[in-house]
Amino acid sequence: MSLHDQIAQVIRNYHSKGWSPATSTNYSFKDEKNQIWVSRSGIDKSEFKSEDFIKINSKGEAIEEYVNLKPSAETLIHCLIYEMFPETKVILHSHGINPVLISTIEKTEVTFEGFEIQKGFEGQRTHLSQIRIPIMDNSQEMPFFEKELIYRQSQLTNHCFIIRKHGTYAWGKSLFEAKRHLETLDYLCECKFKMIK
Amino acid sequence: MSLHDQIAQVIRNYHSKGWSPATSTNYSFKDEKNQIWVSRSGIDKSEFKSEDFIKINSKGEAIEEYVNLKPSAETLIHCLIYEMFPETKVILHSHGINPVLISTIEKTEVTFEGFEIQKGFEGQRTHLSQIRIPIMDNSQEMPFFEKELIYRQSQLTNHCFIIRKHGTYAWGKSLFEAKRHLETLDYLCECKFKMIK
Amino acid sequence: MSLHDQIAQVIRNYHSKGWSPATSTNYSFKDEKNQIWVSRSGIDKSEFKSEDFIKINSKGEAIEEYVNLKPSAETLIHCLIYEMFPETKVILHSHGINPVLISTIEKTEVTFEGFEIQKGFEGQRTHLSQIRIPIMDNSQEMPFFEKELIYRQSQLTNHCFIIRKHGTYAWGKSLFEAKRHLETLDYLCECKFKMIK
Amino acid sequence: MSLHDQIAQVIRNYHSKGWSPATSTNYSFKDEKNQIWVSRSGIDKSEFKSEDFIKINSKGEAIEEYVNLKPSAETLIHCLIYEMFPETKVILHSHGINPVLISTIEKTEVTFEGFEIQKGFEGQRTHLSQIRIPIMDNSQEMPFFEKELIYRQSQLTNHCFIIRKHGTYAWGKSLFEAKRHLETLDYLCECKFKMIK
Repeated sequence: MSLHDQIAQVIRNYHSKGWSPATSTNYSFKDEKNQIWVSRSGIDKSEFKSEDFIKINSKGEAIEEYVNLKPSAETLIHCLIYEMFPETKVILHSHGINPVLISTIEKTEVTFEGFEIQKGFEGQRTHLSQIRIPIMDNSQEMPFFEKELIYRQSQLTNHCFIIRKHGTYAWGKSLFEAKRHLETLDYLCECKFKMIK
Repeated sequence: MSLHDQIAQVIRNYHSKGWSPATSTNYSFKDEKNQIWVSRSGIDKSEFKSEDFIKINSKGEAIEEYVNLKPSAETLIHCLIYEMFPETKVILHSHGINPVLISTIEKTEVTFEGFEIQKGFEGQRTHLSQIRIPIMDNSQEMPFFEKELIYRQSQLTNHCFIIRKHGTYAWGKSLFEAKRHLETLDYLCECKFKMIK
Repeated sequence: MSLHDQIAQVIRNYHSKGWSPATSTNYSFKDEKNQIWVSRSGIDKSEFKSEDFIKINSKGEAIEEYVNLKPSAETLIHCLIYEMFPETKVILHSHGINPVLISTIEKTEVTFEGFEIQKGFEGQRTHLSQIRIPIMDNSQEMPFFEKELIYRQSQLTNHCFIIRKHGTYAWGKSLFEAKRHLETLDYLCECKFKMIK
Repeated sequence: MSLHDQIAQVIRNYHSKGWSPATSTNYSFKDEKNQIWVSRSGIDKSEFKSEDFIKINSKGEAIEEYVNLKPSAETLIHCLIYEMFPETKVILHSHGINPVLISTIEKTEVTFEGFEIQKGFEGQRTHLSQIRIPIMDNSQEMPFFEKELIYRQSQLTNHCFIIRKHGTYAWGKSLFEAKRHLETLDYLCECKFKMIK
């Protein structure tokens, strides 16, 4: 199965988990030629197909046969992540409710301690570490995220961050790894929110 | 796929999310000739088929080959929405639990601020707006809703409203848009209810 | 589709909703000859098939080709319901968590007011009624239930009851009606539990 | 269907319930020759296939054609359970959130009383018993679990235990029984957590 097909399937699966209500969220990957593909905006994710990815350049502009399509404004966040973390091959964005709920309680970061599943973050070897995941404020201005992500680059060691009352970005060197990071964060946020409430 | 088929599929999907327990809810659309079709009443929504829509006139009466069928009393709410908002093509009614729970706490409206997903409501461009969704009291009398909806027409700018301890109506210029409005409202109500509790 | 097939499918669907964890629950129906069939005990409900019903007599004993099988002790509750409410054709038993949770809070009954979905109970015409659903204590002794059900027969007007920290029985003149009663009660209990907590 | 196939299917089903996020969890069984098979580590459980089991010896080392594969460190817990409870044929490990949440509240054990579903634990005949399920602290050191499990062997009468902020182990003389134990524990933990919160 091509990466186009695999990610389209993940997108439909995540939709069925309620992670992309109301046409929200976006996804991208780099193919074997380092060409970036991003999900078209405004598609109902329950019906997302492998043909619904479009080619973009590193500035987030649609290119070649897709030149007349306008990618979502958030495409620039994807481009920036690829630039800041060049090993990244896949970026997943989710509106799953658990990190969103956590972001209404926590300020600039959320911390987790003692959960076995923390080892789902690449590089983590034990549940004894304290994991700190950055929470950014939301904005409709992409330069805000650019500034914020670069300023906080050293905090992005767990390959994900939360945008307040908005959702989650997670990435990896493969689809497999990106999924693991996204699912790990969602699970930890669900635990923490239910423990607090 | 015809609109009949598409909406029947959405009805089955929403049932599997728990949005139409116990044969509840109803759905309607206008076809390309502006003929209104409404879901037959008393059907288990897990098995709803495209043949289960019936033709009605603008007074909510079954017509032509369906003349002997009695549509649900709430059909009049559909008719009124088509009259008040003539661009409307699809109306979805849900018994999803989140707006129902919110309606046990809030009085005449529920407000949302700062959620990215607010942009799911047609016309909303930023999470910074305050969104206000009307909550009507429930009634078995359709004239009550007629009076209430007309009286509060100016509050219906987000293409949906909640009936207390009953459910949600959402509509749009297309199935796509109506779904987006309904799912956006449900998601926001879930967030708000879990934040409050 | 035969009633055997239809109910087997409902059993599998309810299992996927989490209503029959760990091989629990049981189901019965009367066929067109008034023969009672009950689900075999100890079957994983995710795999329940139409062949997994066995014939019983009115004392709850397996008969004919099934005579060597031992039905679940709770079969006697089914028999009693058929006796007390002779119109009954289908009886569904669920371990869905919502009524179980309500039964840890409420004493001898749970009441609901003002919910549109109350009309899911046959005979209810308005949300304005107060609905009272009996809660029985649990017991491993079937004579206890026999005494209790007969003593409280006049309270069973909504075609269902809850057994404390155990589950729900709901019945109807058809599968359609029995499902509607069970789903209505579950939904109402979910609302009430989340409102209280 | 072979046991390989059956357990692979259970693994995929449990994944869809959210019990193995982010490639977590592991599973094992003994075949008719008493050969132990364990799930390969690092596989996305939504795609787990019957070929993804590997043969291990009683020390948890991969053998024969699998000799070059490294099983998960937790394989030693499986081996120990087979040794301590020789009748065991199937061991299931889950990261389902309910026991994890309970383990953040309770200290060395969680108790349940009065739930009908307690009879899901082999040997339990009535809801009137008090069920005590051990909670172990988490560790990355397998000798810790070895010591702890042997020390607390007499408490493992319900064929399962919880590891704090980690997950659940449950086992049985068959897949059927192991599933019943795991699902019973999850259900009880969900009830208790929601009752407390």
